Amino acid sequence: MKIKPIGERILVKIQEGEEKTASGIIIPQTAQEKTQEGIVIAVGDDESIKVKVNDRIMYDKYAGTALKIDGVEHLILKMTDILAIIE
Amino acid sequence: MKIKPIGERILVKIQEGEEKTASGIIIPQTAQEKTQEGIVIAVGDDESIKVKVNDRIMYDKYAGTALKIDGVEHLILKMTDILAIIE
Amino acid sequence: MKIKPIGERILVKIQEGEEKTASGIIIPQTAQEKTQEGIVIAVGDDESIKVKVNDRIMYDKYAGTALKIDGVEHLILKMTDILAIIE
Amino acid sequence: MKIKPIGERILVKIQEGEEKTASGIIIPQTAQEKTQEGIVIAVGDDESIKVKVNDRIMYDKYAGTALKIDGVEHLILKMTDILAIIE
Amino acid sequence: MKIKPIGERILVKIQEGEEKTASGIIIPQTAQEKTQEGIVIAVGDDESIKVKVNDRIMYDKYAGTALKIDGVEHLILKMTDILAIIE
Amino acid sequence: MKIKPIGERILVKIQEGEEKTASGIIIPQTAQEKTQEGIVIAVGDDESIKVKVNDRIMYDKYAGTALKIDGVEHLILKMTDILAIIE
Amino acid sequence: MKIKPIGERILVKIQEGEEKTASGIIIPQTAQEKTQEGIVIAVGDDESIKVKVNDRIMYDKYAGTALKIDGVEHLILKMTDILAIIE
Repeated sequence: MKIKPIGERILVKIQEGEEKTASGIIIPQTAQEKTQEGIVIAVGDDESIKVKVNDRIMYDKYAGTALKIDGVEHLILKMTDILAIIE
Repeated sequence: MKIKPIGERILVKIQEGEEKTASGIIIPQTAQEKTQEGIVIAVGDDESIKVKVNDRIMYDKYAGTALKIDGVEHLILKMTDILAIIE
Repeated sequence: MKIKPIGERILVKIQEGEEKTASGIIIPQTAQEKTQEGIVIAVGDDESIKVKVNDRIMYDKYAGTALKIDGVEHLILKMTDILAIIE
Repeated sequence: MKIKPIGERILVKIQEGEEKTASGIIIPQTAQEKTQEGIVIAVGDDESIKVKVNDRIMYDKYAGTALKIDGVEHLILKMTDILAIIE
Repeated sequence: MKIKPIGERILVKIQEGEEKTASGIIIPQTAQEKTQEGIVIAVGDDESIKVKVNDRIMYDKYAGTALKIDGVEHLILKMTDILAIIE
Repeated sequence: MKIKPIGERILVKIQEGEEKTASGIIIPQTAQEKTQEGIVIAVGDDESIKVKVNDRIMYDKYAGTALKIDGVEHLILKMTDILAIIE
Repeated sequence: MKIKPIGERILVKIQEGEEKTASGIIIPQTAQEKTQEGIVIAVGDDESIKVKVNDRIMYDKYAGTALKIDGVEHLILKMTDILAIIE
């Protein structure tokens, strides 16, 4: 079974906890916090897509629609919700 | 009798309950849940249409307009309400 | 006397009650119901028009502006309010 | 003295009362009523203009800006406020 | 000293009181009144400008930004705020 | 040190008090006042820019973002906030 | 580890306190204050990008999404949030 995002949409596995520390980026754990990290799992075929599978990305925390795959939290985001790639 | 969606619209039969488990995707059953699965029954003729009859799709739960055909719940969605194809 | 809709507008005679049952489509009679059937009486001359006189159509229940012709309820809709053609 | 509407604007004399009955169209006199009839008095020079002087038209009741000419109620409408021509 | 409106802007001297009666147009003096007359004093250089200096115009009463020149009330309007020319 | 506005932005020194009287334009000192004068200090490089350094301009009073340079009040405006040039 | 902003986005290190005094620009420390200074750390590859790494910039104080890198406050801004370059 595979999920194929439509157009400019992107399927992302949410990264939380220790992994963030590993990347050296600390997302502020306050009411003002607004970004979150994830791993790209699948992408649509729109030409606006500028990330690829396995990219580690930052996205706007309040963006996207949530779903669980085999019990693991994922998001379907639009390309415009993605702020940066972490290399 | 046949329903022919106009333009970028799509007629979808809503999938609920066990079928979702079968696909391995568990849509979270909470207040935050936002996606739902369906089967494409008919599509409009707009060039933006990127799904075809019998595709299993995920769509934004609050999108579309509801109708019943022979007692079964369906939705008329726009192409932009469709998040992903499940293969 | 004839009503000629302007541009992308469409004059529709509202269909209610038994007629809906005849087509096999039951519009749910609840607070959530959102679609309704009608018969196209006249159309504007915009190129976006994709229905023709006598087409049986489904439209968004809350769309359009109401008027009565010889005591019968009609609506003037825009092409974008029309969801599907029922064949 | 003459009023020349600008661009896509149209000057309309509001028709009320018996005249509506004459045309066979009864605009429902309820809280839901939304259309009204008028006679085109002058039009702007925009290419979107699709009515001409003396056309009897239906327009969205809440559209336009009101003025009185020699004590008679008129409206300046935009072309997009006009729903249909009554022939 | 001269005021040169920018782009699609227009400088207008507000006309009030007896002058309106002279033109034969009575703007209703009620809470619903929405149009007002003025004289064009200067215009911007945008191609959308379709009035010229000394034109007597009608404009949407709540449009524009107010200023006084030598104690006289003026407005800077946009071309889209102007409803009609009074000839 | 120099401030270079980006794109369609403009740096303006706010003019207040006696200088306004000198220009013959009295901005009404009431709750309804909406325009204010300034001197253009620097401009962006967008093609929409139609003012130049040292132009005396009128702008919408509530537009722009405020900053102080050596204790003097300035604003960064967009070209669309500028209403007129005072010659 | 490196952060690569997407498209028209820009990573900025927030400048506060004495540094502002050094540039001669005093951002008013009041409820009305609206601009803030920063240093460009990384930029996206969109053609609208008109700043480069190490540029000292002014941006709208309420724009962007906050993150910390090695304990230091940064922002991801869009090009349209940047008001001026300070040279």
